[in-house]
Amino acid sequence: MDNDDLRRGKPTNHVIYGEDVAILAGDSLLSTSFEHVARETKGVPAEKIVDVIARLGRSVGAEGLAGGQVMDLECEARPGTTLDDLKWIHIHKTGTLLQIAVAAGAILGGATPAEVEACEKFSFNIGLAFQVADDILDCTASSEDLGKTAGKDEAVDKTTYVKLLGLEQSKQYARDLVDEAKACLAPFGERALPLLAIADYIIERGN
Amino acid sequence: MDNDDLRRGKPTNHVIYGEDVAILAGDSLLSTSFEHVARETKGVPAEKIVDVIARLGRSVGAEGLAGGQVMDLECEARPGTTLDDLKWIHIHKTGTLLQIAVAAGAILGGATPAEVEACEKFSFNIGLAFQVADDILDCTASSEDLGKTAGKDEAVDKTTYVKLLGLEQSKQYARDLVDEAKACLAPFGERALPLLAIADYIIERGN
Repeated sequence: MDNDDLRRGKPTNHVIYGEDVAILAGDSLLSTSFEHVARETKGVPAEKIVDVIARLGRSVGAEGLAGGQVMDLECEARPGTTLDDLKWIHIHKTGTLLQIAVAAGAILGGATPAEVEACEKFSFNIGLAFQVADDILDCTASSEDLGKTAGKDEAVDKTTYVKLLGLEQSKQYARDLVDEAKACLAPFGERALPLLAIADYIIERGN
Repeated sequence: MDNDDLRRGKPTNHVIYGEDVAILAGDSLLSTSFEHVARETKGVPAEKIVDVIARLGRSVGAEGLAGGQVMDLECEARPGTTLDDLKWIHIHKTGTLLQIAVAAGAILGGATPAEVEACEKFSFNIGLAFQVADDILDCTASSEDLGKTAGKDEAVDKTTYVKLLGLEQSKQYARDLVDEAKACLAPFGERALPLLAIADYIIERGN
């Protein structure tokens, strides 16, 4: 559960509007995202739109983001979180959402099933890399650069990649994940350049 | 925002699992509902499924349930809520959700646009009747019958139909809405019997 008081240097929704309105804003945006895909996707066979919506729904539900977030809360509350637990959380919390973000584009763009799968493997790996990079940034960047409270993980003794692997090995792990992600897109040649740039950005970003 | 500690005689989600897990359960069920419609609707042209999902998304978002709920919170916090405010809240909070529940069945069942519209008018009216009946029950039924805390509205001086119209006039208003709802389904003849029974149940129910 994200309960930081700052995001991108600004007070968060629940701080300004209260928890009740923040929860309703979340429900509203979530529903509107499905409406948007259904209403605004043009020039694509309706079967593909239905496929994307089914995958989008799964990626947010108990087998995706919400499930990962619940496990995250469980692990925060008890000691002994392992590297496998951490990966499970991030695969579900972040990996599945990036996976559908990339797969949706591929499906609606007319990719073959094998191409969709390659895109999913790519996004799965950058999803994990994103979380490792987040943990690294939390202990190396300032609150000003980060736009949210820095050093929060260590202060609350949160289990992170940095805590389990150390800083240098975490950086190496993030690089390996990005390399693996980029390798998945090799069959696309130059057409994959924007996605390759996003993969690099994930571990090079300063916030 | 529903924050009662009891629902159908049992402790609510946030009481047992905590607010964070309750919020995530809500997000998860909401996403899964879209996934379910997309994945499990069989034997229907995909265009109709996309149409239903677009309407479903709108009915829950800022122009539907969530918007009505926010206005409900606003009105709770300030005096002078009028009958028009109350109707606006209930049209959005409950009306739109019942509207899509009925319209989805009609659309997927192959109804014409005029038939879908008749079904929507029906559900719109029973949505309002449902809320009027809720206000009546809150001040006439026991907590045991209700399965939630009775008399809560008066205790917190909530603006209700009973407060604005009085008990007898509220009962008449609920009956008028149900009659109007049932009239919308006249063109369907006997095929509408299950929906007519639901309309009657809404004002005859004891909880």
